[in-house]
Amino acid sequence: MRLVSLAKGGRDGALAIVSADGTQYVDATQAAPTLQAALDNWGRVEGDLRSLAGSLSASNGLQPIADTALAAPLPRAWQFLDGSAFSSHGALMDKVIGVVPQRRAAPLMYQGMSDRFYGPTEDVPLPGEDLGIDFEGEFGVIVDRVPMGIDAEAAMQHIKLVVLINDWSLRALAGPEMKTGFGWVQAKPASSMAPFAVTPDELGAHWVDGRVCLDLAVDWNGERFGRANGREMEYGFHDLVAHAARTRALCAGTVIGSGTVSNANFREVGSSCIAERRGIEIVDEGAARTGFMRYHDRVRMEAFVEGGRTLFGAIDQQVVPATRL
Amino acid sequence: MRLVSLAKGGRDGALAIVSADGTQYVDATQAAPTLQAALDNWGRVEGDLRSLAGSLSASNGLQPIADTALAAPLPRAWQFLDGSAFSSHGALMDKVIGVVPQRRAAPLMYQGMSDRFYGPTEDVPLPGEDLGIDFEGEFGVIVDRVPMGIDAEAAMQHIKLVVLINDWSLRALAGPEMKTGFGWVQAKPASSMAPFAVTPDELGAHWVDGRVCLDLAVDWNGERFGRANGREMEYGFHDLVAHAARTRALCAGTVIGSGTVSNANFREVGSSCIAERRGIEIVDEGAARTGFMRYHDRVRMEAFVEGGRTLFGAIDQQVVPATRL
Repeated sequence: MRLVSLAKGGRDGALAIVSADGTQYVDATQAAPTLQAALDNWGRVEGDLRSLAGSLSASNGLQPIADTALAAPLPRAWQFLDGSAFSSHGALMDKVIGVVPQRRAAPLMYQGMSDRFYGPTEDVPLPGEDLGIDFEGEFGVIVDRVPMGIDAEAAMQHIKLVVLINDWSLRALAGPEMKTGFGWVQAKPASSMAPFAVTPDELGAHWVDGRVCLDLAVDWNGERFGRANGREMEYGFHDLVAHAARTRALCAGTVIGSGTVSNANFREVGSSCIAERRGIEIVDEGAARTGFMRYHDRVRMEAFVEGGRTLFGAIDQQVVPATRL
Repeated sequence: MRLVSLAKGGRDGALAIVSADGTQYVDATQAAPTLQAALDNWGRVEGDLRSLAGSLSASNGLQPIADTALAAPLPRAWQFLDGSAFSSHGALMDKVIGVVPQRRAAPLMYQGMSDRFYGPTEDVPLPGEDLGIDFEGEFGVIVDRVPMGIDAEAAMQHIKLVVLINDWSLRALAGPEMKTGFGWVQAKPASSMAPFAVTPDELGAHWVDGRVCLDLAVDWNGERFGRANGREMEYGFHDLVAHAARTRALCAGTVIGSGTVSNANFREVGSSCIAERRGIEIVDEGAARTGFMRYHDRVRMEAFVEGGRTLFGAIDQQVVPATRL
């Protein structure tokens, strides 16, 4: 089952279900007005949504998806906890920064901005081209309510939806903020989500041990930039959920991110963010050649399953100058 | 004007206005059902609320506040950005950790958990007495929508309410998380708020340059632990708001915290968290004597104005063992 939030539904969108081929939708607001409301009552609502998803037809109001604007599945969330679970990315970044790489005892995770997620084609306003504008392609999951102190195995059952996220990053601000130990605020503005939030069963054989085993196709200004696969996560999403819930219950609708998708053979498959490519250049050539994004640059992110079917739909958006916003 | 959220109003509370003596309230849900709704439409709603506040009487339904449970003013918020703006606290912590103290170019700030704020007398469940359970008394402000890129002077106009916060901290987890550079997740569980959210004009001469110039009385198990004054903030709240808004618009209802209230003469006035007292002991005596909190320990926080009137009401709550929550 794949769910979307129609932008016309207001600030939290209006819940709808997507057809198998991704070209049509049916209003699902009778089951729950918004995706947040569905997650708040998932045990009760899921059955209704699955019934509806199983009987999509013109008679229950199928509409062409091309005719409507899609918001992020959760246009805002109460919580976004973003990991950094791909060790090839971390090890490379450590090398570039000059830190001795080490196997960590626990997942890396920070609390990110969650009161706004951009929709898949919205313009992304940022206040300076000199801030090191970078995309970060990652997978994420959305949970229903998770009790404090849950273990990873039990956490798996709380993963209700899988999403594709572009975690926008401002690299010129990231280093100084990281050095404070306080994590990122200015360096991590609002993120974007691809339009379809997908139940794990939709991934079939590509959902393995809490990992999204799909290539993440990233295009920058129409050129393929990376196609790293999600299978190399050092920790599965269930481990990340359990980590997040050690000292807090997670509210329904909490988004947990994987961190930049990255593979050990990054020289072959490319990267999901510019900083990683620059890191490779520094290691291989002594200096970074690739610049960060400029205004009106576009980034596209998508993951495909059998038959070239797009699973999450596409993020495809441009960076624009921020005026007073 | 002082606003409260009645716990009986459900997850986001029901908005009410408190009488001048703090003992009674009047339902304000006709103006806005919740404080979040009021902040979403502050320009339109503020006048109605002030009219109501100016005419509290038995005829418009004054009720004894003792007869109802009060939630946090915002039982959940879309965003909590917590600063560390008291330099005497930071300098002492630097000394204890062994970092060379330095004047920082920008405020320190991290993104905190915001999907749950405990009410003033709710029990606080935590999963282990060995985690270094500590309170952190701080002031905070709540803003209406703030545009991206605003300057500090203009940011001042967006500060609509002042609150008192206990930012619960788990010190055994804080150091390792801080060293990752990612900030705190496990070390910063849900915070608590005192019951009354107060418009800045209520502070009168105690609201100076975006600072709450009041002693914060902190009692631990019935003994005075600290009475540091909020006037020594290195940055005012307007500076913190502008810092937070550099690369993001702040949604209405964003909570901005001051960080632990601390004064240069901490040996005289005491501290607003246990970690600071332990730091003083380490500096003065070579080792920390004071332990962290145990289950069923209580902490009380309050700030008084003229005539011994409590401005924010009191936080007064105990720590309890977390079962599956």
